Amino acid sequence: MNIAILGFGTVGSGVYKIIKKANMQTQNLSVSHILIRKNKQRVLPEMTDDINEILNDKATDVVVEAIGGIEPAHQYIMSALNHGKHVITANKAVIAIYLKEFTDAAQANNVKFYFEASVGGGIPWIQGLEKALRIDSVNSISGIFNGTSNFILDQMSRNGESFVDVLKKAQALGYAEADPSADIDGYDIANKLCISADIAYNIDIRNHQDLPIFGIRNITSSDVKFFQRKGCSVKLIGRTRQIGNKFDYVVETTLFLNRTLEANTPDNYNLISLKGDTIGKLDFFGQGAGMFPTANAVVQDILDIKEQKCHLKREFDKKLEYCPELTKDDYLVRSNVDIRDLFADYELSNEGSYIMVHQIPVGEMHKLMKSVLKMDKSAFMVSLPSQGAVA
Amino acid sequence: MNIAILGFGTVGSGVYKIIKKANMQTQNLSVSHILIRKNKQRVLPEMTDDINEILNDKATDVVVEAIGGIEPAHQYIMSALNHGKHVITANKAVIAIYLKEFTDAAQANNVKFYFEASVGGGIPWIQGLEKALRIDSVNSISGIFNGTSNFILDQMSRNGESFVDVLKKAQALGYAEADPSADIDGYDIANKLCISADIAYNIDIRNHQDLPIFGIRNITSSDVKFFQRKGCSVKLIGRTRQIGNKFDYVVETTLFLNRTLEANTPDNYNLISLKGDTIGKLDFFGQGAGMFPTANAVVQDILDIKEQKCHLKREFDKKLEYCPELTKDDYLVRSNVDIRDLFADYELSNEGSYIMVHQIPVGEMHKLMKSVLKMDKSAFMVSLPSQGAVA
Repeated sequence: MNIAILGFGTVGSGVYKIIKKANMQTQNLSVSHILIRKNKQRVLPEMTDDINEILNDKATDVVVEAIGGIEPAHQYIMSALNHGKHVITANKAVIAIYLKEFTDAAQANNVKFYFEASVGGGIPWIQGLEKALRIDSVNSISGIFNGTSNFILDQMSRNGESFVDVLKKAQALGYAEADPSADIDGYDIANKLCISADIAYNIDIRNHQDLPIFGIRNITSSDVKFFQRKGCSVKLIGRTRQIGNKFDYVVETTLFLNRTLEANTPDNYNLISLKGDTIGKLDFFGQGAGMFPTANAVVQDILDIKEQKCHLKREFDKKLEYCPELTKDDYLVRSNVDIRDLFADYELSNEGSYIMVHQIPVGEMHKLMKSVLKMDKSAFMVSLPSQGAVA
Repeated sequence: MNIAILGFGTVGSGVYKIIKKANMQTQNLSVSHILIRKNKQRVLPEMTDDINEILNDKATDVVVEAIGGIEPAHQYIMSALNHGKHVITANKAVIAIYLKEFTDAAQANNVKFYFEASVGGGIPWIQGLEKALRIDSVNSISGIFNGTSNFILDQMSRNGESFVDVLKKAQALGYAEADPSADIDGYDIANKLCISADIAYNIDIRNHQDLPIFGIRNITSSDVKFFQRKGCSVKLIGRTRQIGNKFDYVVETTLFLNRTLEANTPDNYNLISLKGDTIGKLDFFGQGAGMFPTANAVVQDILDIKEQKCHLKREFDKKLEYCPELTKDDYLVRSNVDIRDLFADYELSNEGSYIMVHQIPVGEMHKLMKSVLKMDKSAFMVSLPSQGAVA
């Protein structure tokens, strides 16, 4: 089986290394091309800067898209599918928008489009979810989908360090990028959550402009210490539920009691959970990023294609309505300004220097918090353990 | 696809119910026979007390063995395979002995023998392990493989109750059997561990007479309280490692620091972990027993056969030597008798009313503990967190 790898960064070079591994040779996989940028040096014989060379090579069976970003990744994936090549990608940003388009194109061209590595890195989450769906309805998903933000929160919790100091450390270790926004503001989680919800509910969320997101940029070491005194750890999670023809989803800072798996997910690990009718609660824990775990998931997809193991077929054509009132939660809010008038419709109480807002719909909470942030750029909020989470 | 279910206890009736579920009808599965005992009433039209009726029915594709125990389960499984039927079972006791015989017979008859439900119940552990093995060497497995013993230890830890009181509660809830030995003395874990090691290392452990086992029968509420004061939780685990052409395995009570996933695995849940070259540490958490989770795993196997998704092919023909000295650990021992002479070859220290034995080979520790138990029937030991565990 001949594989072309587009891009030779962390994921692309990891895939190359795993395929070259001694005990993989029996699998009879071979890298035919590696697409690099025009100005890069061709240090390996497989390297080329011409995408058409790959698209027009009839001997290439599988294209691994490892460029990242939206374009030209989207265009290359579509071209590869339309040239009758199977496509595998770990690129959550492009899938979150174009999952249905890719799936339809794959079906039209009688090839596969697989993306296990896009959510949870090395964790077999997509396949675990798809497997559960063969038997159960899965109407609740919750998880720590992002290792960088988990590393930051874990370090703050263990060492009492400030957000800024830990972020710098994460950047020095290569866990966080120079522009850390995707990780700390929740956009990376948003993409992974939408891909998971698309599969779980067989819908096409696409641009997810209505998804409420609140990240960890404003968290302080005092916040973390206060939550610890209450016996809780704060985590940045994505979660979604479905009831009847409605669903909701949210990315937000959430408290977990110390004796939960979430509270004890350390370092840059991920933990993703589903709830099914008969299977009950099922949790997957592992490395959600990094060269080898992510590349492992890509090569697993290659092997599934080689062994003709078809993944769950989804049309993404079910219509569910996003309902911002589906879940009500309690929230703690920290702000320098008086927010009592803004939240006058809800029961409020004092918790130390925080105000607790009781049983407010999640969508409404995020809307009002935007108003708070206009008055106080450093304001912070966190949701409390509730029936909304996979519990 | 026509399915015969042998036995109609918890697992058998669960499989029947899931197949009859509304959203499974699209899968086109049908129960052709249910084998019950001769003296039982035939309350369903599919019921029969004649195994030959099933074996000789050419329309039956799959036999689900849900009788449990060694015989006649072993004989029925072999007969079904030799009659050209796929066989699925959740029966860990019979697989732990006959895995290679069943696998060979399945291959000879060009049918499948699948057993996902036998380890970890509803957790997709067997398939998770087999998937990891397509790319990685897995040379370390560790887990909470038994829900009943975990429930007992968790209750003792939460409520300070005695072992005997919690065992009675577990029996009243249906979590523990009238004869609880398989669960509390570690034999159930031993079976699941050996099946996992067989797959991971491609070996045929079979009777595992050399496996060191130490269960929870002697644990007291004072033990649990002492470990809690040290910031640890005690769990009954199975673990195995492989180095070169040697392996070891053990079932024993082990301490875990409070901030680990193991320490926070509650109630009757299971948590099973593997470590692979590229995938790193991967953990699976979920319901390891119970009607629906176990039946779910059985039906997943049925669907794999229907969709022609072949599981990893193993010959179980690799030769590894069991090495009782492969892992050294620290142990705490509680005994009414003076054990210092017995452990004179090892560094000893006092920890409260316990004696700590430093860096003793696991096999040797279990051998010496048998001598301790001959003098003091109520003696107890626990291993400390170490490099031997999946960490």
